[in-house]
Amino acid sequence: MSSTSRMNEQSAMADSARIITYPGLVGVLGGMGPLATVDFMQKMLEATPATRDQEHVPSLVSSIPQIPDRTQAFQGKGESPLPALLACAKRLEAAGAGVIVIPCNTAHLWFDDIQANVGIPMLHIVDATLKEASTPGNDVSRIGLLATEATVASGLYVNRASSASNAKAIEWVLPTDIETQEWVSPGIAAVKAGKLTEGRELLTRAAQALHQRGARAVVLGCTEIPVVLNDQNSPIPTIDATAALARSAVDWSRNARSR
Amino acid sequence: MSSTSRMNEQSAMADSARIITYPGLVGVLGGMGPLATVDFMQKMLEATPATRDQEHVPSLVSSIPQIPDRTQAFQGKGESPLPALLACAKRLEAAGAGVIVIPCNTAHLWFDDIQANVGIPMLHIVDATLKEASTPGNDVSRIGLLATEATVASGLYVNRASSASNAKAIEWVLPTDIETQEWVSPGIAAVKAGKLTEGRELLTRAAQALHQRGARAVVLGCTEIPVVLNDQNSPIPTIDATAALARSAVDWSRNARSR
Repeated sequence: MSSTSRMNEQSAMADSARIITYPGLVGVLGGMGPLATVDFMQKMLEATPATRDQEHVPSLVSSIPQIPDRTQAFQGKGESPLPALLACAKRLEAAGAGVIVIPCNTAHLWFDDIQANVGIPMLHIVDATLKEASTPGNDVSRIGLLATEATVASGLYVNRASSASNAKAIEWVLPTDIETQEWVSPGIAAVKAGKLTEGRELLTRAAQALHQRGARAVVLGCTEIPVVLNDQNSPIPTIDATAALARSAVDWSRNARSR
Repeated sequence: MSSTSRMNEQSAMADSARIITYPGLVGVLGGMGPLATVDFMQKMLEATPATRDQEHVPSLVSSIPQIPDRTQAFQGKGESPLPALLACAKRLEAAGAGVIVIPCNTAHLWFDDIQANVGIPMLHIVDATLKEASTPGNDVSRIGLLATEATVASGLYVNRASSASNAKAIEWVLPTDIETQEWVSPGIAAVKAGKLTEGRELLTRAAQALHQRGARAVVLGCTEIPVVLNDQNSPIPTIDATAALARSAVDWSRNARSR
């Protein structure tokens, strides 16, 4: 197919191309880490009933692993990720996204700051997760939380759950400091470094500890964790925050496209 | 974290955020199909030596499964995907991508048309694949090709290989019409529909047929195929076009960032 012979036709096409928009375009503010973003995209596909390409959800994914570390920033040990998060969010909005989701729990510490600066709605990962934890028939009220130090210490899950009027009362089982230092943080770092077997072993020990202290289910509240831990290999049932956000995003897109 | 109390600080941050750019930003023109795009992103991660998030390649991924079917268009049975491909490419360019890659072999029938309309370079999946097929020590010259009807019929691989001055002579083993109708096309469709086991069985039969006619290795020349077929389960060694393009994109990004 020669390009030179069809330049005029193409120029006309290029002009028309600029106005093509896709209703229900999901903007994914990702890269934190990049493997978690791929896991999120995979889970959006799994959440979509589709028999051919065209039935799948359109998405625009900003995977920028260079966004400064969220836990380091929360602990005052590194620069704020907010300028980079805002830049990515604004790029997604400018490119036509109708909603923004962030497949990184800790980055939700800056959720309100981002939402205040973009003109499109955002879906909150904790809301999506609590909604699934509160489904009828799920009578578990004592729930463990596996997450980064910053997500646990900030009360991201605990505070949002207690302020949500429609959520049932949850009795949280949180990792102790020593569990965080020895298992949770190194487990998350291992996943980020691609050492999946090592990460799975460390995080399984942490889940076992929460189980022994009475947790009947565990929220996988850092997007690196469900990359290696799931209902098949976890000692207790899991509530996968990544999958919950993916289902929430797919629902939003399907609703937007049916309007 | 309250948003209202920090609105002024945020406005300043929002202004500064607009100028944040990422050298080596890979633009991925994807969604054809969406599972193949996720596979491509996974392979970019695997091709990157990294121990923490920030060492990974930044990317911007347009995953638009609504782009019209490429094989149907080539056969004159459906609308051209070119306007949609151009729209996606221009969005990636406008959002700051420094290069564009397309994890869909058949879409490369419009590669020259897209390249003529954007101001950034593009990496061609066939070039990346042939480069890996021609590595020193790889003395295979009789190579099978598993690909869509349009990719095979258009000569996308065969013509580009014979016109590449530095490529060794390849003796291609192509699927027969009946192999395409019974195994290759239904196998690709099964992957697109999420029926991975069925897809793997059909495509394995096709690879066996090429092997029996003398192929010593097989190019997986449709990005749905390596989702289910690989060196571990294929009857003959595979040359994975998706992985080759991913490695090519990672090399480009690392070079761009080290400049």
